[in-house]
Amino acid sequence: MKIVCYKDTILKAINSVVKAVASKTTMPILEGILIQTNDNEIKLTTYDLEIGIEYVIECEVKEQGSTVVNAVMFSEIIRKLPDTEIHITLNNQNLLEIECEGSLYKLATMSPEEFPELPKIEVENSIEVDQNVLKNMIRKTIFAVSSEESRPIFTGCLFEIENSKLTLVAVDGFRLALKSIFLTKQSNDFKAVIPGKTLNEVNKIITDSFEPIKIGVSKNQALFEMDNCKVVTRILDGEFLNYKNVIPNSWETRIKVNKNNIQDSFERISLISASSIEKEKKYPVKVQVDIGKVIISCTNQTGDAKEELFVSTEGKNLEVGFNPKYFLDSLKVIEDEEVYIEFGTSISPCLIKSIEKDDYIYMILPIRLKED
Amino acid sequence: MKIVCYKDTILKAINSVVKAVASKTTMPILEGILIQTNDNEIKLTTYDLEIGIEYVIECEVKEQGSTVVNAVMFSEIIRKLPDTEIHITLNNQNLLEIECEGSLYKLATMSPEEFPELPKIEVENSIEVDQNVLKNMIRKTIFAVSSEESRPIFTGCLFEIENSKLTLVAVDGFRLALKSIFLTKQSNDFKAVIPGKTLNEVNKIITDSFEPIKIGVSKNQALFEMDNCKVVTRILDGEFLNYKNVIPNSWETRIKVNKNNIQDSFERISLISASSIEKEKKYPVKVQVDIGKVIISCTNQTGDAKEELFVSTEGKNLEVGFNPKYFLDSLKVIEDEEVYIEFGTSISPCLIKSIEKDDYIYMILPIRLKED
Repeated sequence: MKIVCYKDTILKAINSVVKAVASKTTMPILEGILIQTNDNEIKLTTYDLEIGIEYVIECEVKEQGSTVVNAVMFSEIIRKLPDTEIHITLNNQNLLEIECEGSLYKLATMSPEEFPELPKIEVENSIEVDQNVLKNMIRKTIFAVSSEESRPIFTGCLFEIENSKLTLVAVDGFRLALKSIFLTKQSNDFKAVIPGKTLNEVNKIITDSFEPIKIGVSKNQALFEMDNCKVVTRILDGEFLNYKNVIPNSWETRIKVNKNNIQDSFERISLISASSIEKEKKYPVKVQVDIGKVIISCTNQTGDAKEELFVSTEGKNLEVGFNPKYFLDSLKVIEDEEVYIEFGTSISPCLIKSIEKDDYIYMILPIRLKED
Repeated sequence: MKIVCYKDTILKAINSVVKAVASKTTMPILEGILIQTNDNEIKLTTYDLEIGIEYVIECEVKEQGSTVVNAVMFSEIIRKLPDTEIHITLNNQNLLEIECEGSLYKLATMSPEEFPELPKIEVENSIEVDQNVLKNMIRKTIFAVSSEESRPIFTGCLFEIENSKLTLVAVDGFRLALKSIFLTKQSNDFKAVIPGKTLNEVNKIITDSFEPIKIGVSKNQALFEMDNCKVVTRILDGEFLNYKNVIPNSWETRIKVNKNNIQDSFERISLISASSIEKEKKYPVKVQVDIGKVIISCTNQTGDAKEELFVSTEGKNLEVGFNPKYFLDSLKVIEDEEVYIEFGTSISPCLIKSIEKDDYIYMILPIRLKED
C-alpha cells in the first residue's frame, strides 16, 4: 500500500473515525484504524463492536493495499505534521511509513484480516435532515437520556417519525425531554431507539452546516450517512415509554417567565442546594407561585437562599419542590426569550414549554418538600 | 458590618484572594475569607499559612465590622449575581446576608478572631518591575522548579539582584532555566528563594500590564505589592545552587536553528519516545549533528521516528541523548525566531541561548544512549 494525501484531508477523516475507536479493550485490533485503498480513494474504518464509522477520502493511490494501525499513534503523528503532502507506505517489514518533509515515522501494524466486519444494513426506512437541525435536536434532548443500565431502553433516545414529523424523546425517570421538527420530505412512519452513546459520537461528527444527513434503519441497526462518512450503530431493543400518555395536557398554575432570569435564579440557588454536607439527603428547592411572582428558596446547613422574580401568573397559588438541576439542564438548551412553566398539583410533573409553538416540551417530576 | 459595593469590584478582589485559600485542611477558618471594613474601604484577606493575600477595595461602608465567610460559597454566589450593586450585611444571627435585586442569600460565618494573623514584614531590600515583565520572567523559568520535596531549596525559584540586574533561576537536577533583565532603578544586591507554589499564585494575580509590582524581602519573608493587593510568602531557607559555576562557557558543537522547526520536530518525536510500553525505561531521543544538519531520532517497540533538519552548524560532529520533554519545555517559552544550541561532549550539558542577547539560558543534561 502506498498513498499520498494532504494532511488536512486525512486529518479530517481521522478526527471523525477515532470516535469509534475502543478505548478500554483487551483486543488491540479494536484500537486500530483499518486503512483500505480502492482505486483513487482510501477508506478509514473503526469499530468498537457497538458503533462503526467509515470515512472515504480521495487521494493519490500509488499501490493498492490495506493495513490496520494504532489509531492514537497514527492520529497524533498526522496531527503534528506540517500542513503539506504526506506519503504513507506499508513497507515490506509490515511497518507503516509516514513521511513528510524531514520527518519519517514507522509504526507497527496489524493484519486487516483480523479487523471485525461492520454489520451490513438493509435500510428499510429512512429520513433526511440538515446536519445542523439534527445537531440541535440531539443537544436539546440527550441530557435526559438515562445512564441507568438497569433499564437499557432508556439509555437511548427515541427517534419517532409520524406524519412526516420527527420527534426525539429522552427520559430518565425524573424528567423527560422532547424536541420535534417537521420533515421537508414525506416519509413512512417508523421509530427506533438509538443508544445515547452513539448519538453523542454522531453529534461530534456532524457539523453545524446545512449539509444533509440521512438516517436509515433496519430491524436491528441504524445508519447515519453523510458526505464521505457513515456511522453504523445497533438499535436498542424493547418498548420505549409511551410518552404521549404521561405528559399532562392541562394545568392548574401557569407562569410566563423570562428564560434567562429564571435560569440565573436556579443557577444561584443550586449553589446552596448542591452544597449540602449530607450529600445523600436531597435538599429540594421550593418553588412558590403567588399572584404576580414566583419565589424559589432553599435552606440547609450551609445557608439560606431566596430568589424572587416578578412574572405573569395564571391559575392557583402553589408550593412545590424540585431538584434545580433538572430545571437548569432544560433551561440551558432553550433559546426562547420567554417560556411557559405549567404546574398541576404539588405532586404532579411540571412542564416547560414554548410560548408560541409546540416543538419542545421538558417535563420534570417534583420532589416532596421536607418540613423540618 | 454593612457594606454596599459593585459586583465587578468585589469579584476582582475575591478572584485574587481565593488563590491563598487552603483547599485540603482540617481548619475550616483557613477556607474562609476575612472581610474587614476600615472607613470607606474593605479588606479581604486569605491565608493558608504559607501564602497570605490581602486586597483592599473602596466601597460604601454603612456599618463597620468584620467577619469570616467560606471562600468558595461566597465567591460562587457573588460570581453568579447580576452586574449591579450588592448589599452585604452581617445580621444579628451572625449570618452574612448577600442581597442583590430579587436574590437574598444568608451564609454561615466564622469568628474573625480565629483567623490567623499574616506575618509582619520589615522590608529590608526591594525592587520594582512592571507586572508584565515579572509575569514573563516567571513563565520562562517556573517549569524548571523541582517538585522533589527531598531538596526543598530547589522547590523554589532564585531571585538574584546583582548590579541592578534581576535574574530568576530554577533548577531541578535535570535542567536549569535562567532569565534576567536590567532594572530601571538602581537597587542593593540581594537574593531570595521564593517557593514555586507562591510564584504560581502570584503569576495568576499579576496582570499583563505595565502597572508596577514591588518585591520586598525581609529575613524570612517576601512581599509582592501591587495596587490594592499584597501577597506575603515565606522565603526558602538554604543555599541555592551556585549556578554560575555549572553553566558551561564554551562549546564543542554549536547549531543555529529555527526555534519553531526544532520544537515541532521534538513534539512529533515525543509521541514515539513517550509511548514506550515499559514506562520505567527511559527511551532518550538521539540528537546527531552532522555538517549542515541535525538528525533527531528514536526507536522503541511502538515504532521508529526520524526528524532531519537543515541548520547551520559549527564545530565537531556529535551524537548525544536527551529527554525531549526538557527541550520542549524550554523551546515553548522562547519567543526568538532562531536560537543557538551549544553542545560539549556526549556527557556534558547542552545550552539553548539567544543569538543576540544573553538574557536567557536553558541548560539540559544529557541521558546516556542505550545501544540495544
